[in-house]
Parts: sequence; C-alpha cells; structure tokens
Amino acid sequence: MMRERLWWERDDLNYAEGRLQFAGADLARLAYSAGTPTFVYHAARVVTNLNRLAAALTTRQVPHKIFYALKANRFLPLVTYLKLTAQCGLDVCSPNELLLARQVGFAERDITYTNTSVSDNDLDVLARHPQVHVNCDALSTIRRLGQRCPGRTIGIRINPQVGAGYHAGLHYSGHKATKFGLYQDRFGEALALARQYDLQVKTLHFHFGSGYLTPQLEALAAALQHTSWFLDQCPTIDTLDIGGGMGVPLTPEHHPLDLNQWSQLVADHAHRHNLTIHVEPGDYLVKDAGVLMVQVNTVEAKGGTTFVGVNAGFNLQNLAVYYQTPFVVAPLQWDESRPQIPLTIAGNINEAIDLLAENVTMPLPAEGDYLALLNVGGYGASSSSNHCMRGTFSEYLLT
Amino acid sequence: MMRERLWWERDDLNYAEGRLQFAGADLARLAYSAGTPTFVYHAARVVTNLNRLAAALTTRQVPHKIFYALKANRFLPLVTYLKLTAQCGLDVCSPNELLLARQVGFAERDITYTNTSVSDNDLDVLARHPQVHVNCDALSTIRRLGQRCPGRTIGIRINPQVGAGYHAGLHYSGHKATKFGLYQDRFGEALALARQYDLQVKTLHFHFGSGYLTPQLEALAAALQHTSWFLDQCPTIDTLDIGGGMGVPLTPEHHPLDLNQWSQLVADHAHRHNLTIHVEPGDYLVKDAGVLMVQVNTVEAKGGTTFVGVNAGFNLQNLAVYYQTPFVVAPLQWDESRPQIPLTIAGNINEAIDLLAENVTMPLPAEGDYLALLNVGGYGASSSSNHCMRGTFSEYLLT
Repeated sequence: MMRERLWWERDDLNYAEGRLQFAGADLARLAYSAGTPTFVYHAARVVTNLNRLAAALTTRQVPHKIFYALKANRFLPLVTYLKLTAQCGLDVCSPNELLLARQVGFAERDITYTNTSVSDNDLDVLARHPQVHVNCDALSTIRRLGQRCPGRTIGIRINPQVGAGYHAGLHYSGHKATKFGLYQDRFGEALALARQYDLQVKTLHFHFGSGYLTPQLEALAAALQHTSWFLDQCPTIDTLDIGGGMGVPLTPEHHPLDLNQWSQLVADHAHRHNLTIHVEPGDYLVKDAGVLMVQVNTVEAKGGTTFVGVNAGFNLQNLAVYYQTPFVVAPLQWDESRPQIPLTIAGNINEAIDLLAENVTMPLPAEGDYLALLNVGGYGASSSSNHCMRGTFSEYLLT
Repeated sequence: MMRERLWWERDDLNYAEGRLQFAGADLARLAYSAGTPTFVYHAARVVTNLNRLAAALTTRQVPHKIFYALKANRFLPLVTYLKLTAQCGLDVCSPNELLLARQVGFAERDITYTNTSVSDNDLDVLARHPQVHVNCDALSTIRRLGQRCPGRTIGIRINPQVGAGYHAGLHYSGHKATKFGLYQDRFGEALALARQYDLQVKTLHFHFGSGYLTPQLEALAAALQHTSWFLDQCPTIDTLDIGGGMGVPLTPEHHPLDLNQWSQLVADHAHRHNLTIHVEPGDYLVKDAGVLMVQVNTVEAKGGTTFVGVNAGFNLQNLAVYYQTPFVVAPLQWDESRPQIPLTIAGNINEAIDLLAENVTMPLPAEGDYLALLNVGGYGASSSSNHCMRGTFSEYLLT
C-alpha cells in the first residue's frame, strides 16, 4: 500500500521507499557520513524561490531588483552560489554583513544597507562604500550620513503603520509605535535634512512584517497605499523597496502565498507611480530550502508524555521560541511498522523551553534514529548561539 | 540637593557625583577606553553571592557543597578567578563544558554533570572522566552509562512536579510534563537498572525552576517534600542536589530571597534525612555581578514614543525576549539637568522584538552617551549569537 504523500512533500523533498530524499541526496546516508547536528541547504531551491518572485513581477512588466537579505543565512558556499548563479543583490544590515557581501564579490551597487540604531562606526564603514544604497531609518541617520557623504544617493525607510506576519512579534509596524522608519510627522524634516546635505532621495523603503501569506495581503495593500502620501512629497523618488516578509507554509492549514495577487498589488502601485520595485526577501528564499538533521538519543515516557531527546537544541534555531512558529519533524527513515503516537521532541539544552516540537504524531523513533527539522533554512545557523557549549554543527550545500 | 538612592544601588554599584561606579571603576571612563558593547563583571560580587549561600547553610550546620552552573557565564578569567579564590565546584551540562572545567583546573570530583537528552558521544566523554558526578535524567542515560562504566557512583535526577521562577517558561516542572528527570512511576526501573550495572546511587537531584524569590519558597518546600518518597526507596542516597534557581530582584517590587527561610527549609529536610546538600547556582551568582555597557547612537521620537537606539541588541542578552524579564537601564553619567521622560531602548538588530527596555523613565540621553544594562551577568555572553553579524563584544573582569 502506498503511503499518502505528506503535505510538505515536493519534488526535491520527499520519501522514496521510506527514506527522506532532499535535493537528490538520501539524508539518512548523509547524516551517517556528515554527523549531526547538520544543516543541509538546497541551493537550487533558493534560486527557484527567487525566480518565482522575479517572474511574478516580470510577467506584470514591473521593473524590479531583488536583494537577498543576508541575515537569514550567510553560509558562504550558499552566498557564493547566489553570486555565481542568481540574479540578485544582497541586503545587509551591519558593517560586517556589508564586508562579507563584498568579500563574496557582490558589487557595491548590488548592495542595499537597511538597519536601525545606526552608529557612527557603522556610518564610517558606509562612507568607505559610496555606491552602497543606504535606506536611512531615522533623521539622525540622514544627518550623520549627510555629514560624511554629502551628495550621496539615499533611500528613506518609512513606518507603514500596519503589520502582519507569522506572529505578533514579527509585525514590524502597526498600532504600537516601532523603532523602524520615519512616520509622516517627521518626513518633512527628513527631506529638509537631505537637502541640507545635498542627498539625493531616490528610494522609499518599508517593511511591515515577516511571514505574511495570502490572507495578510491586505496589509501589503495598506502599506502600499500608505506610501502614496510620501511619494507625493518627494518627486525625486523613483524606486520603492517593499522589504521582505513573504511567508511560506508552516502547517497543513497554510497555503503558499498567492504571487499572482501579490504581484497585482505591487504592479498596480508601481505603474501608478512609475516606480522601480526593490524586494528584500530573506527567509522566503531560504526557509524551505534548509533542513536540520539531528539524532535521537533518548526515547522515554515521562509524566504521560513521550519525549524524544535529540542532540541539538533551540540554540541552533531560535524562531520557534521567539515566535512560536512550528517546525515540521520528519524521520529520515519512515518505518510503517512503528506505532504512530504523539511525541514531544526535546533538545539537549538545560532549559524548559527547549522543546523543538510538541505533540507531533509520527512513527515512534528508536534511539540512534535520525530526524529532520524542516523549514529551518533561515535564522538558524546565522543566529545560533553556543549556549551550554552546544553550538557545534555542520552545514552542507547541495546544488 | 542629594539625589535619592535608586533601588538597585549598593556598595559596589552606585552613583558618585552622577557617575556610575562599579567594582571601584568609573564605568564611563572604562567604556571610553574599552569600547562598547562591553560586559563588565565584578568577580568579588560573584564570590559574595556564593559565600552568602554557603553561610546560610553553614549556620544551620548543613553539610554542603556548591557547584557553580557554568552555563550562566563561562568567561575564562571569571572561571579561573573562582577556581583560585572560591569554595566551589562546577556544574556542567555538556562535554565541552566539562572539558572547559578541566582546562581551568577543576578536579573531576569537583564537577557535576547534569543534563537531559544525553547522547552516546556525551557518555563517551563522561566515561573518560570517571570521577565526575553524573546526575542521570532518564532510564536511557542510566542504562547507557552503566554499559560504559559499571560500578560508577551516580545521581538520579527526579522531576519534582512543582515549578516556580521569574516566568512560566522558567518552570522546569509542574502540572505539565517536562523533559527533566524521572517521575515516580519509573523510579523502580531506574534503581533496577542501576543494580544491573552495579551503579552506586548516592545523590538525588531536582531543579524546579529559575528565578524563585521568597514568595515562591513554598515551591521549594513542596519539591523537598516530594523527594522524601524517593529517598525512602533508595537508602544508599546520602546527598540531595537541590539545583539552582535562586532569584535576584529585577524590579523595585522584588525583595531579595530570604536565605534565612530558604536555609531553614533545606536544613530541616537535610537533617531529617541525614543528607549532604549540593546546590548548583548559576544566575544567582553572576546575574547582579554583570553589566553591559552600550553607547547611544540615535535619540528620536517615532510615532509618539521616544526611542533610544544603542549599539547592541537582544542577541547579546536573550533573557528578556525569552522570559520577559526586565533589564534595569542606568546612564553611566546621570545628568539631573536633562528632562526625565519615558524611553524605549532599541537595539541594532533588524527585528521588532529587539527592544532592550520599554517605558523606562530616566534622563533623556544624548547621542554618544553610554548606558549600562544591569542584571545581565548570566546568560548574556555565554548564550549570545552573531545574529546580523552584530555579535562582537568585549568582556572585562574587575576583581
């Protein structure tokens, strides 16, 4: 009898005779040779995700450029792969990320710098990279950048006053004031400062949240609408950077973001205002292109719950703790003969919150088995810690 | 007019003529020379905290030994200072922490190993350190340790089925089943496994939560009471390890843990059962002995909130994000002439949750000013990440 296809299976990630295949590799075999914990990334999937976005805009004849948000995943082989094979720039948010982008060979003109709480040290580094496109997030940034680099072309980040995403903590703007971007009441001062230092304001930037899907497109529509007032104030702006934040399905109840609707919204706005569109996807490109392989070391019922202890912890992938976004757990070998019962996957960090998944039903693993966590390609390795000195892992790029 | 002493000021941490002094150092001067972000630890404060605990037990004639929980802060100068000057061992929770403890010179007999989800690799390292005292947290651990080290002396961690701490996420046990320790229903099997491998069960271990203060001592009483049943089952046990978790005041509403009441509870139980007591304080020793110095780079009202942007983010100190425990914010120079208004301290990480403090009233800083975050000596540097490549910081030990 054929096993039913699981909701997350797809061409490059699926079971074949009960063994999980990813990017053409048999993951159980890879785990055996590579050891665990190990992140595995499918480079071509990243580019597929990128091209899907680009195609949606191209179809609607929207002039555009995509800047991959480096903070999601900066594994050097992956970044190098993108440099060599993909049509994208990089969005960076710190001097070290900027230098890394340059180290991999990205040209300054293919780099956007978008950050908040910008220090003088940060600005000194930016001053040494005159072609990097800085999206200024505060009056203070405009002033201090202007002092260093009069005449430079800049962007201004605004706060769209609407938010959406996987979790309230991922709303970058909304009713509550946030640190990101300028509100309308300061935009006049921003333009005056720009004039004072002869800065050319060419781009308007916003980012309203991370993890939005089709039901949240109304937030995108509202954010786009919100930009109109700003665009009217500043005719030199010819580019709108709509940030990142496009989500991917994390549960069977989620559906992929409808890029047809998405691009319709963006295209209507772009054409109305004669804009080039910049997009800064990070997690959207890498999230479903990465898995984390771990090994089971303990299977034991405690207090009525069956805990599956593994050799990795939340320090390698913080998102579930920060934002309660669920991981998908997949055994590398699916044994139909095992009982399927509800399980809690427990990490090896000495904190109670270190549960990688709760109440997931799958075949009961045995000690020594391997599991994969899916949808962990973003904000895993790049923001991992060495908490409890459990921060050791490997990363593999499959092309 | 003299400024009123703030609730957190104490002999080694206070303002003198408006300048914050810590461990005899003028922090503004140190920030200027050391740069920021920089963690500063007062070693003598750590030992004071340790000695306070020890004295409370000594006064009540409780045989005891204290094992500093290394995961809270493993800055090598601090750990070395403890080795050279303090009466304590170390509690470790991973092979790398164990090796680090040995590197600093701690003898195996002065090291306890307490962890969950223990892998075969972990056990292989433990097998090479036969005098390290392992608190086994699962039947699986007892079995696999017994296979490697028959005849070894061990501890067994139990789940006390009660929890307390700064935040629900810091309850290590309670109504909901947790991954930590054995429940009563498996203890018979645990003792049978120990007998099978001739393991000598000498210690019972529990840890019920992190950040308990005097009002939560009833949880300690309940946990101690809960151990009686286990002690009755296993007469070879002569030591009770009560974990760590003692809290320190984080707000003016908190009062220091009443060690008189604490030690009374522990002493009554110890004497009744003729037990030596082990304690594993981590955060309790280092939390209020560490500050993080940061520099203000942006001061700006946005959407009705005054944001103070600084050159560090939540990646350097995750506790507030994980557990909503508040930081105390203190300007290194307190300027009475500045207006005191509600402020939000914003980090330099591109996430909306990266707010280091909200709605704190203090003198409005200027760009370039330095601030200190207080109560950050534990779980700061040791579990920091390089998120956004903003993970660079320094650490200083003041003795």
